[in-house]
Amino acid sequence: MMQLLQQTIQRIQPTNNTMKEKAKERIDSLSKPPSSLGKLESLAIQLAGITGELYPKLDNKVIIVCAADHGVCEEGVTSNPQNVTFLQTLNFPKGVTGVCAIAKITNAKIVTVDVGVKEDIPLDAKVLMKKIKHGTDNMAKGPAMTREEAIQSIEVGIEIATAEIAKGANVLGTGEMGIGNTTPSAAILSVLRGCHPQEVTGFGAGLGAGGIEHKVAVIQKAIEINKPNRHDALDILAKVGGLEIGAMAGSILAAAANRKPVVIDGFISTIAALIAYELEPKVQDYIIPSHASEEPGAKIAAELLGVEPMLHMNMRLGEGSGAALAFPILDAACSMMSNMATLAEMMALVEEK
Amino acid sequence: MMQLLQQTIQRIQPTNNTMKEKAKERIDSLSKPPSSLGKLESLAIQLAGITGELYPKLDNKVIIVCAADHGVCEEGVTSNPQNVTFLQTLNFPKGVTGVCAIAKITNAKIVTVDVGVKEDIPLDAKVLMKKIKHGTDNMAKGPAMTREEAIQSIEVGIEIATAEIAKGANVLGTGEMGIGNTTPSAAILSVLRGCHPQEVTGFGAGLGAGGIEHKVAVIQKAIEINKPNRHDALDILAKVGGLEIGAMAGSILAAAANRKPVVIDGFISTIAALIAYELEPKVQDYIIPSHASEEPGAKIAAELLGVEPMLHMNMRLGEGSGAALAFPILDAACSMMSNMATLAEMMALVEEK
Repeated sequence: MMQLLQQTIQRIQPTNNTMKEKAKERIDSLSKPPSSLGKLESLAIQLAGITGELYPKLDNKVIIVCAADHGVCEEGVTSNPQNVTFLQTLNFPKGVTGVCAIAKITNAKIVTVDVGVKEDIPLDAKVLMKKIKHGTDNMAKGPAMTREEAIQSIEVGIEIATAEIAKGANVLGTGEMGIGNTTPSAAILSVLRGCHPQEVTGFGAGLGAGGIEHKVAVIQKAIEINKPNRHDALDILAKVGGLEIGAMAGSILAAAANRKPVVIDGFISTIAALIAYELEPKVQDYIIPSHASEEPGAKIAAELLGVEPMLHMNMRLGEGSGAALAFPILDAACSMMSNMATLAEMMALVEEK
Repeated sequence: MMQLLQQTIQRIQPTNNTMKEKAKERIDSLSKPPSSLGKLESLAIQLAGITGELYPKLDNKVIIVCAADHGVCEEGVTSNPQNVTFLQTLNFPKGVTGVCAIAKITNAKIVTVDVGVKEDIPLDAKVLMKKIKHGTDNMAKGPAMTREEAIQSIEVGIEIATAEIAKGANVLGTGEMGIGNTTPSAAILSVLRGCHPQEVTGFGAGLGAGGIEHKVAVIQKAIEINKPNRHDALDILAKVGGLEIGAMAGSILAAAANRKPVVIDGFISTIAALIAYELEPKVQDYIIPSHASEEPGAKIAAELLGVEPMLHMNMRLGEGSGAALAFPILDAACSMMSNMATLAEMMALVEEK
């Protein structure tokens, strides 16, 4: 056990600096004022460093949606019925959820994984069956899961992502479905940042009867009871995390190990990225941000991870919807590299006349 | 003369409120937390209001790039040689500029129009020949153009946009090429907002030897000499504007008159939109913002127009590059409307099992 996780971490290499320099050289030679394409330029440089290619092709996009339930829901931290996780998980393979609709704009594929949904998923639902347990335990009363289960959740993400990459995926997106999962996300962030849960707790998809003060109190209680070790990401994930958060962290680690870019979604995804980062800081260079979620913790998490979201859409759906919306920006960065003329080429074109 | 402009303005109607309400109803019935898709939802409502269709198809995208030169360049407001306008104008039809590369991600067509490039464009350059004059006059010494020429520039934009819509365009983007055009743009904004040019003047594509203080002084001089009337947009455009700015304003008016959405680019485009708005405030409902340009005036112009850019890319290329990058967001809004299931549909899907 833990072998897959350790092997994956060991395979993560720094991005290719030579190729990044070559990309920067080409970008600076293009016929435009220096740096005038802003983040499209830094993105193209990053993609060159990740893939080792000056003109990467990112035509096989896959969003891995990890689904799981949260025992802490019994504390009334959300107004949404818990079985929405189950119901919605069935709907991703049908192509009718928010992320599915947005993914269509770039023909991105959605892969749905059950890492820990409370109910049993029907066998014909086209959901990958990787259930570790029927939802986490209530973190306000004890650890959400064992350390072993936390490792398993990460390894599920590694497995699925590696399989998709083997099948041809050249860029990944992270998505999730898990009613109540802004609560463990805020808990993890509070521990990692060493701040009061109040600073990082928001409305999520809908607050329970107790409101935000109650949600904050539940998070505080979970941290006090479990005492997660700030310097041990697996301990944090196990005690106050979630199974889908672990799986997303795993898919991010696998993307980096396989030199593929991974676009993270909003709050929950950024928290998963932070867990991956704590396990291996080199993953950071493989991570591409997407949108600035409405959830207050999202901004703090992005800063902690050192990424700056590109889309400001006031979205807070999750599912990977923001990652899907950012995919065309990657296409634009690639098109800039391969379809713009350099100043020299342009002068030659003019002289041909 | 001016007949086309007046007719176009008269044809601009309010957007369809009934359809907007229907769109909102559908969006609120979709299986997601209320408002969780943020600006994608308001965009879908706006598109329904503009087109009068609940499921608009925006598969024929056209960016109209208006090119013209600026007499004020002789004051040294930019470090770029003026003939870059000419050279780059030849390159849009070749598909090798920044906006061309980005437009490829949605197969958007680029239409290039010479409204006032200093040099003569070769007849075989695939540039639409609508030159009104060989660049504006130096606004630091007198009006940039006559009122008649300003009207002509707007009417060129109306003509081109109307022709593209007649050929099937169902969404337009605005773009421009005009070395020095952040100077007239800042001048127009300074007049419209009634503020010192210093507040709205930035680096543009590259500052001239005198730096920003000199650019501000030139703008101030142009305003003092010409005394544009704040309440007469044609007077402002003529005295301290630009031919491509007029043409872009025209294409925005034509889009609105023909009930088509128009995506504006950055600073120069937003200024053109403000001119269109001054001529007919109803255009506002037809305008869709794209990116937040690095140019300091862009933020102020967007606020004045009442729009909030969606993309934060630190871009400042112009050409329509930001509009091209925003097109997939429109596609996502349309896909949300037509491909997401409602809660009721979802429950039915579950019960089918």
